[in-house]
Amino acid sequence: MDDGTLAGFLADLASPAPAPGGGAAAALQAALGAALVSMVCNLTIGKPRYAAHEATMLAARTDADKARVEALALADADARAFAAVSDAYKLPKDTDGERAERSRAIQAALVGAAEVPLRTAAVAADVVGLCAAIVDGANVNVLSDVGVAAACARAALDSAAINVRVNTAAMTDAVNRDRAAAVLADHLTSVSAADAIVHIVGERIGS
Amino acid sequence: MDDGTLAGFLADLASPAPAPGGGAAAALQAALGAALVSMVCNLTIGKPRYAAHEATMLAARTDADKARVEALALADADARAFAAVSDAYKLPKDTDGERAERSRAIQAALVGAAEVPLRTAAVAADVVGLCAAIVDGANVNVLSDVGVAAACARAALDSAAINVRVNTAAMTDAVNRDRAAAVLADHLTSVSAADAIVHIVGERIGS
Repeated sequence: MDDGTLAGFLADLASPAPAPGGGAAAALQAALGAALVSMVCNLTIGKPRYAAHEATMLAARTDADKARVEALALADADARAFAAVSDAYKLPKDTDGERAERSRAIQAALVGAAEVPLRTAAVAADVVGLCAAIVDGANVNVLSDVGVAAACARAALDSAAINVRVNTAAMTDAVNRDRAAAVLADHLTSVSAADAIVHIVGERIGS
Repeated sequence: MDDGTLAGFLADLASPAPAPGGGAAAALQAALGAALVSMVCNLTIGKPRYAAHEATMLAARTDADKARVEALALADADARAFAAVSDAYKLPKDTDGERAERSRAIQAALVGAAEVPLRTAAVAADVVGLCAAIVDGANVNVLSDVGVAAACARAALDSAAINVRVNTAAMTDAVNRDRAAAVLADHLTSVSAADAIVHIVGERIGS
């Protein structure tokens, strides 16, 4: 159904197919935030007024460009990881041996399916860090876009957290579950930083 | 530069062109939320277990499908409204007459540029209302997607607020400025409802 266009992607997301779903949306939010960081850097680099921030902007642009590509790849990876979980649940369960094999396959697929939103959360946390790095030196004409980038990254963190938890909730191995929870908690420390940037930008643009 | 694909749109957002920018990203966040509401409805409608919620889901899907199309159109409208402001600032200002005409044109363009994120905020608030309507009757297998939809809509509200304020801050007419602020404040009452849905979904999916 998805013909590769933005409207096609959204129609595909809206369709009865369970993937792409919330995992892809989370990754796309991170990609939107990264793209806006790149735009702000591009509109600040080379301007004499912001020369003192040139090195910061050049470094942030490189990182944001990478984050955008990675986030977009995670949107695809999420659909594949979802399919692996779905396929595992469809395995036969008529004999003890089949049931054991099915359980093993489901648990392995759940670890993979939790890994994608954990990586999305990592990229989103990076985007928040980039917003923090550029907010003071950004071209004032696009300061609002730094705030929107932080709001996008915040939503990506919230969304990724939901998607990690929906997978860890079905994990039977406490080690895997606790490891995922710890990595997630680490990334979620960026939520308050994102909110602070949204607030700071709101204050500075006035009204 | 934008070739119509998702990757192309993100590259266009990241580019040195100031539009598409944060306004388009805000609208796209609302579209993502609307698309996920449609998906959840599509995966709940027709299932005997959720028959009691059939009418709610059918109505929500109709509204969500409309919201998605409207939000996508707002992403385009934002770029046009931005261009109108940019063009107004480029008008000649050599004579008193030219300066008066330029000021008038800038103010008119600012009203139009604030109108787009106000409409984005309205759509995002509608998406929050749809999330609230479906959260109790949604297919439990896609309950997490209701939470992600609410997170998307919340980010759209935060982003639209920034974009309204960046335009109203430059308005000289207090009537226009106050009207925009009042409409925005009304839509922003949905922020706490969005957060509540994200929280409820997080609680219900466990872990």
